[in-house]
Amino acid sequence: MTTMQTPDTTTRFPEAAILPDKHVPAIHIWRDFEATPAQLFRAHTDPEVFSRWIGPTDVGADITHWDARDGGSWSYTARGTDGREEFATSFRGCFHTVREDRLVQTFTWEGMPDGVALETMTFEDLGDGRTRLHAVSLCDSFEDRDAWLRSGMEVGVNDGYAAIDRLLTEGAL
Amino acid sequence: MTTMQTPDTTTRFPEAAILPDKHVPAIHIWRDFEATPAQLFRAHTDPEVFSRWIGPTDVGADITHWDARDGGSWSYTARGTDGREEFATSFRGCFHTVREDRLVQTFTWEGMPDGVALETMTFEDLGDGRTRLHAVSLCDSFEDRDAWLRSGMEVGVNDGYAAIDRLLTEGAL
Repeated sequence: MTTMQTPDTTTRFPEAAILPDKHVPAIHIWRDFEATPAQLFRAHTDPEVFSRWIGPTDVGADITHWDARDGGSWSYTARGTDGREEFATSFRGCFHTVREDRLVQTFTWEGMPDGVALETMTFEDLGDGRTRLHAVSLCDSFEDRDAWLRSGMEVGVNDGYAAIDRLLTEGAL
Repeated sequence: MTTMQTPDTTTRFPEAAILPDKHVPAIHIWRDFEATPAQLFRAHTDPEVFSRWIGPTDVGADITHWDARDGGSWSYTARGTDGREEFATSFRGCFHTVREDRLVQTFTWEGMPDGVALETMTFEDLGDGRTRLHAVSLCDSFEDRDAWLRSGMEVGVNDGYAAIDRLLTEGAL
């Protein structure tokens, strides 16, 4: 297992920390939410909820396939406007493990179909009404991993997690 | 992509070469077969054929689920006798990509369910009636990768590929 730990037990992540692993070609994301593990699990496995937060604020997500169980799979198309041009781009993967405390899934952007990342998400109850999301995306080379880190991915990550905060505040989760 | 190349273009692999990647926690396997790419693809995607070669010679495989398509999944139980004790142990994963020249799938041994490897197989036509299988198993840590290398995995790999050779000779592929 990739077991890079939170730097220290008192660190809090009201904003996402997005960091490269020191040893393997993986990206770690840590983010704390005012939520239970079950609420974060639902945010990642209920397609109607997922479509309301994933990605940058001004980009919509049409779920095209969703079967959140061990051995199931998923796909969605992101739609937005880049300046004056409309765009649509798709993502897909498998759900390898779907468990209340752990999700393992594959991830591909259809624009680069041979690039596949293995994503592991855990939901850790911090015991004070908050839950820590730890997401690990394992890429198959350091070059691919570093390209993702340079891609502007933090915009979608931060916008998406802020949207989860809003869904939690609205009682929609 | 993990693009560790064959050491040189004249090297031939009548036996499997099983080597650690130098940079990422992956295992590479190269093996040449007297086969077409389509035959090797079938060996890995047809459940009836797969069950006839996978694993050590004296261990049988019962396919318990098989859906070889993008977003499908698979599982099987290996059954054998270890000295005088019968054993059964199971494996499962998703098919992320199922294409004539490329398979990408996840792999878990149910004895260690949180360990997930991402496997990529390519089938390269060598132009002389033979096809080279290149399999890459990406693990999430060097410790896990090295444990696999020390596990005796080469027995199942070599026995399995020798069984593919026999299926090819018999015309069963």
